[in-house]
Amino acid sequence: MPELRKDPFLGRWVVYAPERKQRPQEFPMIPLPKNLNAFLSGQESLTPPEIFAVRSPGSTPNKPGWRVRVVPNRFPALRIEGDLNPEAVGFFDKLNGIGAHEVIIETPDSEQQLERLPVDHVVDILRAYRQRTLDLMRDSRFRYILIFKNYGPMAGASLGHAHSQLIALPITPLVVKHKLQASQKYYEEKERCLFEDMLRHEQKEGSRMVYENNGFAVFCPYASRFPFELCIIPKRQSPDFHSCSDHELHSLAEALRTCLQRLSIGLHQPNYNLILHTAPIRHARRNYWSTIEADFRWHIEILPRLTGVAGFEFGTGIFINTTLPEEAAEFLRNVRIN
Amino acid sequence: MPELRKDPFLGRWVVYAPERKQRPQEFPMIPLPKNLNAFLSGQESLTPPEIFAVRSPGSTPNKPGWRVRVVPNRFPALRIEGDLNPEAVGFFDKLNGIGAHEVIIETPDSEQQLERLPVDHVVDILRAYRQRTLDLMRDSRFRYILIFKNYGPMAGASLGHAHSQLIALPITPLVVKHKLQASQKYYEEKERCLFEDMLRHEQKEGSRMVYENNGFAVFCPYASRFPFELCIIPKRQSPDFHSCSDHELHSLAEALRTCLQRLSIGLHQPNYNLILHTAPIRHARRNYWSTIEADFRWHIEILPRLTGVAGFEFGTGIFINTTLPEEAAEFLRNVRIN
Repeated sequence: MPELRKDPFLGRWVVYAPERKQRPQEFPMIPLPKNLNAFLSGQESLTPPEIFAVRSPGSTPNKPGWRVRVVPNRFPALRIEGDLNPEAVGFFDKLNGIGAHEVIIETPDSEQQLERLPVDHVVDILRAYRQRTLDLMRDSRFRYILIFKNYGPMAGASLGHAHSQLIALPITPLVVKHKLQASQKYYEEKERCLFEDMLRHEQKEGSRMVYENNGFAVFCPYASRFPFELCIIPKRQSPDFHSCSDHELHSLAEALRTCLQRLSIGLHQPNYNLILHTAPIRHARRNYWSTIEADFRWHIEILPRLTGVAGFEFGTGIFINTTLPEEAAEFLRNVRIN
Repeated sequence: MPELRKDPFLGRWVVYAPERKQRPQEFPMIPLPKNLNAFLSGQESLTPPEIFAVRSPGSTPNKPGWRVRVVPNRFPALRIEGDLNPEAVGFFDKLNGIGAHEVIIETPDSEQQLERLPVDHVVDILRAYRQRTLDLMRDSRFRYILIFKNYGPMAGASLGHAHSQLIALPITPLVVKHKLQASQKYYEEKERCLFEDMLRHEQKEGSRMVYENNGFAVFCPYASRFPFELCIIPKRQSPDFHSCSDHELHSLAEALRTCLQRLSIGLHQPNYNLILHTAPIRHARRNYWSTIEADFRWHIEILPRLTGVAGFEFGTGIFINTTLPEEAAEFLRNVRIN
């Protein structure tokens, strides 16, 4: 059974998942033999049974005919069955490693990448994110659902076939707590939303803006930790990604596709992490406050992994970045995409 | 001029150091042509003039005859000259990137590694750490001095020749602030030191202990983020590394050498980051409290980089670790060293 342990100094949790040691290290650099790739159409029996799929009418679950397919991770960091059993272990605190760990297979085609798929296909991927969130939210053991994507070995991906991941957690992560606290404090002081103020500042200032459509804005954050880091933010105030309408998912798919294409073309397919920051699950919010609807806004971070994370970053939390976000934004604005 | 920018959500700073882009990417995998390695004996003129060295009697600065040599980093993240000029930039906050960035060359021999040097030589390296800290502490612009070591490309090292680094910062890093706050809170509640309580717990429990001598204890932390992570902690209460006596540095050298040898032999020279966590500089402590002498203890973290840091870790601050610290400690206790 995996377990969650808490660091007594920083309050941060660590997930112990000994079973993930067995995971194959199949880097995209090494082309996979076709018969070993469980994410291909026709290889559905190599994965655990699917939880959700976007399929052609009349096709059968766990058979070909899908565009997007969600399956449990074969090497899960957390286990879906069981109780949390929070307990003190002498001086320390632990929980059973209960949660969900799912893989969103973005396409049956191992040669494709997210940004090269048609907009409607990207919308289907985002609908899978939304559908899985809405389903898992109902589990009272969970407090937070993180959707993320690792692209390339430098970004921690062990498989080259296009996929994202979802992890449902029985705790609210510290990074999320700190963002929630800052947003609330700002709102209490100013009666304004920190995200809205930042977005307006970026739109007015212009030098860090990369892309904008009706629903979303994309910019390089003022204090970007990584060269060419991007933030995608909705223009409508909402703490929850799962509140997106189909229309909004279409605008988001356009924004996401455009930015990832610019990164890919401009920087020669850099490895990256994509992180969807949304509010904690509603029943977990009772620990917080009532202004969250007005003070916190969901958003996406894209972190290109062109540089390593070393001792200084781990020792301080301060990142050293060699590229100013103004330069990065100018470069990305000028990348010509097809 | 480098600059420091503050993230409005998490309060974390980023260092913008555009000049570091020119840094050579000379990984230890690729043996350096001898005439390009500025850290070799005889190549002293390729580095900026030395700031400190442990030398044979009668030898001349910036000439051969040294065992340990400290020079300014040729591609510094922060600049030593200038004023901080903190200012608001519209919505955001910035500072000039003022600080010190030094390299501690641990040996003139490019084939050596820290853990293979004689104990007295390791003591000389630790004395260089202490001496540089004592010197830089007197600069009223600085609030924190971080000493760290990146070994291997996975850990962010761009050179294979054994070296450590020192960065003096004009701010106290968030990671340090959070540790200080937790230590203070614990002390206020219990009138006991969190570090001392943890050390006693580990000694009594035993399963995570790796090594112990008169002055120091080494264990795998209960909530280790990385497989085979180690913490080296002094048995004497002190917030400041620079308060170590020569005798204590000797015990520390023995502890450090033993642990690094066990990691190196047991895990086939893994890449790692070493981080020395000490209290902020005295004049910066006025922002904190008066119990720091009793509540905070300096310590060293060693983070083997056998696994990557991916989207989940960046999105949550939660690490997934496949090796329980009890297993790691048992393994390391049983590694036979020469």
